[in-house]
Amino acid sequence: MTTTISAYAAFERGGPVRPWTYEQRDAREHDVRVEVAYCGICHTDLHSIGPWGRSFPLVPGHELVGRVTETGSAVTAHRVGDLVAVGPVVDSCGQCPPCVAGQETMCFTVATATYDAEDRQGDGPTRGGFAEQVIVHERFAYRVPDGLDPAAVAPLLCAGSTVFTPLRHWGAGPGKTVGVIGIGGLGHLGVKFARALGAHVVAFTTSAAKVEDALALGAHDVVLSSDPERMAAQANRFDLLLDTVPAVHPMTPYMLTLAPGGTLCSVGLPASFDVAPFAMVVGRRSLATGGAGGTAETREMLDFSAEHRITADIEIIGPDDINAGLKRLEANDVKYRFVIDMARTRSEH
Amino acid sequence: MTTTISAYAAFERGGPVRPWTYEQRDAREHDVRVEVAYCGICHTDLHSIGPWGRSFPLVPGHELVGRVTETGSAVTAHRVGDLVAVGPVVDSCGQCPPCVAGQETMCFTVATATYDAEDRQGDGPTRGGFAEQVIVHERFAYRVPDGLDPAAVAPLLCAGSTVFTPLRHWGAGPGKTVGVIGIGGLGHLGVKFARALGAHVVAFTTSAAKVEDALALGAHDVVLSSDPERMAAQANRFDLLLDTVPAVHPMTPYMLTLAPGGTLCSVGLPASFDVAPFAMVVGRRSLATGGAGGTAETREMLDFSAEHRITADIEIIGPDDINAGLKRLEANDVKYRFVIDMARTRSEH
Repeated sequence: MTTTISAYAAFERGGPVRPWTYEQRDAREHDVRVEVAYCGICHTDLHSIGPWGRSFPLVPGHELVGRVTETGSAVTAHRVGDLVAVGPVVDSCGQCPPCVAGQETMCFTVATATYDAEDRQGDGPTRGGFAEQVIVHERFAYRVPDGLDPAAVAPLLCAGSTVFTPLRHWGAGPGKTVGVIGIGGLGHLGVKFARALGAHVVAFTTSAAKVEDALALGAHDVVLSSDPERMAAQANRFDLLLDTVPAVHPMTPYMLTLAPGGTLCSVGLPASFDVAPFAMVVGRRSLATGGAGGTAETREMLDFSAEHRITADIEIIGPDDINAGLKRLEANDVKYRFVIDMARTRSEH
Repeated sequence: MTTTISAYAAFERGGPVRPWTYEQRDAREHDVRVEVAYCGICHTDLHSIGPWGRSFPLVPGHELVGRVTETGSAVTAHRVGDLVAVGPVVDSCGQCPPCVAGQETMCFTVATATYDAEDRQGDGPTRGGFAEQVIVHERFAYRVPDGLDPAAVAPLLCAGSTVFTPLRHWGAGPGKTVGVIGIGGLGHLGVKFARALGAHVVAFTTSAAKVEDALALGAHDVVLSSDPERMAAQANRFDLLLDTVPAVHPMTPYMLTLAPGGTLCSVGLPASFDVAPFAMVVGRRSLATGGAGGTAETREMLDFSAEHRITADIEIIGPDDINAGLKRLEANDVKYRFVIDMARTRSEH
């Protein structure tokens, strides 16, 4: 038996998303079925509809919040009616060292992505949150903290986790100076988290229009990266740089701002790294990457967000506006995350 | 007053080295004058005679051993007759945090290189160890440990320090699995040090002819990097990779062999990094660089070498053979380091 699901799918590489229905598999014993209330639009969705897409029609969406409507027979973590959030991963082997440590995004057999991946039990491709419903393993549904706006929690599951995990891993906190490069969906949460973690936070932006915004988000200082003098004045200063830029861009000027032993962590997934090895040798600087954390790191991020009242700054749109939202995201024209109110779909059906 | 020094210099970019004499400045109060006995040929010498060279004539050589023949009035660390070694740095600001910590190669004002750099007190360009004598600040002359062959100690000052420093920094030791990529001047010392530090050591080489050699140097295992099956079998395995390859080369296959959180440290100074960001995201892998250590790290390396009887495997040549040595080094045809016996010059003069 299957369930017919209304969703929004890209039908071809680079194409727009359009309404689509597909037959969804049933929930297995450890699965929960979630009725999607809100789903963020992540830059990964653009990448996936674009060059990364594996198979079409493709239903994007991997930062979502919704109610549990069904639980498999062995589910213990959630009950029908619970408000839960789901991120970029819906399953993993559960056996390898990273999985056992709650770092499932590093699963040795590659964690199962929320969409455009193969189900681990051979039950077809996974499909994301631009839809009425999703089915996920109970381990990958997280309780939404009380008192936070559920729509603004949705982007925490990918954007939030992607910046919080490296900030924690590289010890952002009191006494540390952290730079956040790019003030968009990831960067605005990077500034909020780094500030709440107790670090001295400097935002780097190419846009003079974002200086005030970055300060309002919590940055102690803002550097216009187009100003060579201000850039030169940052030399040897940062313990950690969180680089959220999704396009290939010159990283050498940023490398030179790292203190000895510092790390530039690129979380924007550019296609390649444009950096001069020489800029890294003097100062023993490192180039690292990061992505969303596993279950342990995601729970920690949600607890921290609840404690510090951190959510994403969002613009809520209806499903009819997804294509316009994707276009504006590509043009970096959003403050700072689009979230689709999926309920608008259902009322129209 | 100056001293006329016999040396070997490159007169133009890419040109051969030829005998040359130059006027050397006097030793200042904190300087020692060293009569060069042995000087290693480093890949950096090739880079410097080639694309990196700043001003010609250029006297290469930055891993040397010799006797102190003169000490400045304020020198306390050495006496005339001491056998000392000198590496790639001869001076630094001495004031910035890295200098104070004995990590002078990270000096915020850029440490003064042993050759082709400007003297910090405006006294002309620095000139290296392919010469009768060098003058260095006493801090950058190191006592040669008793009982080690001085000729085979010379390459420790650059090649040795360049591999030992990152091995120590990233915790190579018992319980860690370390890969050494490339078995040349740096790599052969990387294998020796990593083994002596207690790590499980795997050598990667493109050359079937080097398999036995790598085992003899101390590797527990050797992987032919041209064998895709053997490479795939190394997935998620290494805590640290020490990549000694000086040319641009595909790093992605090596990245995939790193365990979660592992680091690939490139010490060969390629012109750019050829690596897929995606291979680093899954597993939160880092790309780092390294170079020779500062005075604290260099002293530790020499003490460790004395304790574990580690020196370089060398081929001794005379000054007349420098050009042939440079050519063979470029062709990777040396086991594993050329060392020039500079005394052969003096006897001929």
